[in-house]
Amino acid sequence: MLEQGYHQKRVLITGGLGMIGSSIAVRLAPLEADITILDAELPMYGANSFNIETIRDQVRIVNLDIRDRHGLAQLDWNFDLIFNLAGQVSHNDSMKDPYLDTEINYLGQLNVLELVRARNPKARLFFSGSRLQFGKIDTVPVAEHQPQRPLTPYALNKSAAENLYLFYHRMYGIPVTIFRIANPYGPRGQMKHSKYCIVNWFIRQAMEGKPITIFGDGSQMRDYIYIDDLVEAIVRAMTTPGMEGEVFNVGSGAGTSFRDMVATVVDTVGTGSYHHVEWPADYVNVETGDYISDITKLKRSFDWQPSISIEEGVRRTVDYYRNHGQHYFSLPAQSK
Amino acid sequence: MLEQGYHQKRVLITGGLGMIGSSIAVRLAPLEADITILDAELPMYGANSFNIETIRDQVRIVNLDIRDRHGLAQLDWNFDLIFNLAGQVSHNDSMKDPYLDTEINYLGQLNVLELVRARNPKARLFFSGSRLQFGKIDTVPVAEHQPQRPLTPYALNKSAAENLYLFYHRMYGIPVTIFRIANPYGPRGQMKHSKYCIVNWFIRQAMEGKPITIFGDGSQMRDYIYIDDLVEAIVRAMTTPGMEGEVFNVGSGAGTSFRDMVATVVDTVGTGSYHHVEWPADYVNVETGDYISDITKLKRSFDWQPSISIEEGVRRTVDYYRNHGQHYFSLPAQSK
Repeated sequence: MLEQGYHQKRVLITGGLGMIGSSIAVRLAPLEADITILDAELPMYGANSFNIETIRDQVRIVNLDIRDRHGLAQLDWNFDLIFNLAGQVSHNDSMKDPYLDTEINYLGQLNVLELVRARNPKARLFFSGSRLQFGKIDTVPVAEHQPQRPLTPYALNKSAAENLYLFYHRMYGIPVTIFRIANPYGPRGQMKHSKYCIVNWFIRQAMEGKPITIFGDGSQMRDYIYIDDLVEAIVRAMTTPGMEGEVFNVGSGAGTSFRDMVATVVDTVGTGSYHHVEWPADYVNVETGDYISDITKLKRSFDWQPSISIEEGVRRTVDYYRNHGQHYFSLPAQSK
Repeated sequence: MLEQGYHQKRVLITGGLGMIGSSIAVRLAPLEADITILDAELPMYGANSFNIETIRDQVRIVNLDIRDRHGLAQLDWNFDLIFNLAGQVSHNDSMKDPYLDTEINYLGQLNVLELVRARNPKARLFFSGSRLQFGKIDTVPVAEHQPQRPLTPYALNKSAAENLYLFYHRMYGIPVTIFRIANPYGPRGQMKHSKYCIVNWFIRQAMEGKPITIFGDGSQMRDYIYIDDLVEAIVRAMTTPGMEGEVFNVGSGAGTSFRDMVATVVDTVGTGSYHHVEWPADYVNVETGDYISDITKLKRSFDWQPSISIEEGVRRTVDYYRNHGQHYFSLPAQSK
């Protein structure tokens, strides 16, 4: 069914040079999907042309920003499936510049939805929401029906965009599927800064032999999902009948303490270290507490389950950057 | 305390020529508040300079749109209290033009919040949300903690703006108070069209001797709150210590069926009639079901309770438009 679902299908991936978007492209290229990647390649986020190195001849790349409503209107919207991964990805930056976050993460999605409604309302749409939509967590694991109390512009714009997708689904019948994604990591993630994709950032720190800083005792639980497990869930959800209008909480379903994640990174890399510091005062306002996705609905809805443990995922990620790290960051000279 | 709270205080009311904004101005002028009214006077909404006829010499009027970030920045933001009533008010229009709704109801509020943060973070802010933020209702009365599942761009932008106010409160300490208002009606409401303020619209229909159309059997419950009760709650909330960061569901706390509301209007006016028709097909997507506000928190938080029944409120409203109707709509010539 997966093969049929993508064979010679016209696929648009916005944010297609980033970690998740490019991993979808790499997964779908062998199925002979007709792939268009749209990416603004904003310098502060994760677009990296090396991410699609192995499929470069099999994809079309359009350099365009989802904020550019008129530019988007020039595209041929005759796509069968649209994966919307373009986004402002930093929780912290959304606090510093709420306009930027709103323009990309909310108005950008409105641009896509309005064009799909006007030009091709049968296109199958995927939207990537965030676990942060839930805000402060009362109980884990977190199921879909739990109330959303988003704490930052990033989180509240994701929540608003999700509601917009659901509105276009109800009102115009546009088939949308929404994932609220926990903490993804793995190959193709950016390693330029610590603003998001923290597992990847820590792998870089360890590879550079630097000490990793843990806030507090590091006991806060997170749900880290390896990119291949996430991509497999996305590509299956988008070809399974009945998933239209559905929202899923997505993660590995297992909690890992921040401290254990860091220890796994340091052990696997074999260099680096870690130490604890007090939580910065202003983090208290945005820290959500423990988060674990309840993936019951996800596992019940189609043939999928997470298959890669945090140890295995970190090992594969470290391997990837040992081989290709120079495309993502500059290792310090040996002599330093 | 109310007197002290407003005496010679600098008050900004955005949307101050509309029903709620102007009624706040009329309430505060005798307390010698120093009132600035900001209004874009957009033709499709409720701005009406007659609304402030009795206090015209006691207020300053600025013609400005909250979408105009640079225009707003020219204001002196040295206000003690800011009542944000400016908004796109039509649920239905938000579906036809989601950009317009987003630009006014979300980005417009972001403009206000960013200027307050930068220039005067001690200003006391009021934001008017909507009962529609809740979407489809499972059980009435509806308390504050019930989950928000907004059904339209209007509702989801109100919800996003509320989250934004709460973010600016948590992160920057800006004292905000949020009301999610049920169905207000009364003097100073617009009577040009049926898009919102439906009790007022029906009063006009009855005054013109026209038949009023009820969808279905009219058994759906609504919570109609008379403008004076609403304004009294707003002005008290804004001077009661401890209300900063608080959200309230606001209404009369009593349910009235749509049919009974219409019958009250027709009885009170003494002309007009009503008849039932089937629900239009597309209303099913946005109809919320019965709505009644749970006003327990509101009544417990300060000295307030609704004091005007639907019969009394409709009577006062009819009186108002019998005296001043020509400023709101043109009655047909007697001969017709």
